[in-house]
Amino acid sequence: MPRYRLTLEYDGGPYRGFQAQGDLPTIQASVERSVKAFSGETLRLQAAGRTDTGVHATGQVVHIDLQKAWKPDVVRDALNAHLVPEPIAVLEAVEAPEGWHARFSATTRRYLYRILNRRSPPALGQGRVWHVKKPLDAGLMHQAAQALVGHHDFTTFRDLQCQAKSPMKTLDLAAVRREGEEVLLEFASRSFLHRQVRSMTGSLVEVGTGRWPPERIAAALAAADRKACGPVAPAHGLYLTGVEY
Amino acid sequence: MPRYRLTLEYDGGPYRGFQAQGDLPTIQASVERSVKAFSGETLRLQAAGRTDTGVHATGQVVHIDLQKAWKPDVVRDALNAHLVPEPIAVLEAVEAPEGWHARFSATTRRYLYRILNRRSPPALGQGRVWHVKKPLDAGLMHQAAQALVGHHDFTTFRDLQCQAKSPMKTLDLAAVRREGEEVLLEFASRSFLHRQVRSMTGSLVEVGTGRWPPERIAAALAAADRKACGPVAPAHGLYLTGVEY
Repeated sequence: MPRYRLTLEYDGGPYRGFQAQGDLPTIQASVERSVKAFSGETLRLQAAGRTDTGVHATGQVVHIDLQKAWKPDVVRDALNAHLVPEPIAVLEAVEAPEGWHARFSATTRRYLYRILNRRSPPALGQGRVWHVKKPLDAGLMHQAAQALVGHHDFTTFRDLQCQAKSPMKTLDLAAVRREGEEVLLEFASRSFLHRQVRSMTGSLVEVGTGRWPPERIAAALAAADRKACGPVAPAHGLYLTGVEY
Repeated sequence: MPRYRLTLEYDGGPYRGFQAQGDLPTIQASVERSVKAFSGETLRLQAAGRTDTGVHATGQVVHIDLQKAWKPDVVRDALNAHLVPEPIAVLEAVEAPEGWHARFSATTRRYLYRILNRRSPPALGQGRVWHVKKPLDAGLMHQAAQALVGHHDFTTFRDLQCQAKSPMKTLDLAAVRREGEEVLLEFASRSFLHRQVRSMTGSLVEVGTGRWPPERIAAALAAADRKACGPVAPAHGLYLTGVEY
């Protein structure tokens, strides 16, 4: 029974998140429906990251186990054909090695948060960026973000609904830079807590506008208290950009 | 009666082009409605380029004449407030010098054409790029495009509906480059014929896929015959990126 690793791009806007929930529109339900249309098989796919409602992906990784050994490019093209006109695309399909698992074998997950930092609202970027009017100091945000890198108790930056057993995580990368009118935040970790990236981003924006001094990020982290978190950034600026194994 | 120069960004997808046409949804109608909501004035705005149905802009320029002398930033913010939730944004408003006209004073118009050149369809880029599956040789396209630069009879690359008196135009720039999975085409001219950019782009894609030898671009131009044009590229990959005065 061959296992295929699929890399997905999607616009999270029209979906109630990645994970299947009954009849609600979800990425998982759409991809599973295209698998069924293509191969006739009803299956549950496994994903590296269960993105929230409205969150996008340019590099989500999932796996499917098929009865028949199709050529990977046939799997990719057939799934894409059945996904039309949904804003979900299979970028790559490859045969996975024995024992490989999209979720459990992942060693790094990467996220990008896009902020449009200008006075005027987004037109072409509607639903793709968080619009922050107040000028942001990306350098100061980057400096403050370094306090988050490393092994910490991330209770402050964890949604109250988070079901992870432990709040301890190791953040490998937190980088903030300006590119023209956008401020881009990149994060990498083996795994993240629920809404951790949006929680960290929202707090870093407080630093960027000057409402928080940069040291308050380290203090908020040390507090290990959800009440110390800044406003959580909205879903539509967030992208799962890649998973490493 | 102060005149304001407005720079606009818009998603052309939901509109029947720039120019007002009765009750059809157009960029012009939406902006004029926001002017009326803000200042109470009914007016016709003037634009540098009348983009077709589905064509986007990141730097369209228009002008409006208002009775009262508002601060330009107030005009920008008020129009944006009244444009919500439409995918149209006023990026900048400035007071125009005496005698300046958005259309007649323009000396250069710049367009960008975006092609997503990969096997998989666009997900996040739906409606924003032309999807061309066959690998394109951007270098060869760039080389072929140079035959279009200069003062020529562009009859081949002009829509049959074009109402310009003369097919003679001077193309100042035709540049093609690859950026990752995208092939980007940039064009600049004092003015363009109707569908000229999409006609040139469609023919250059024939060169990029190898269906046309590069010399056929020069031959098609010299033919001065619409039948010599390749398939016209779709509207949704095209962006009016700027106007110079």
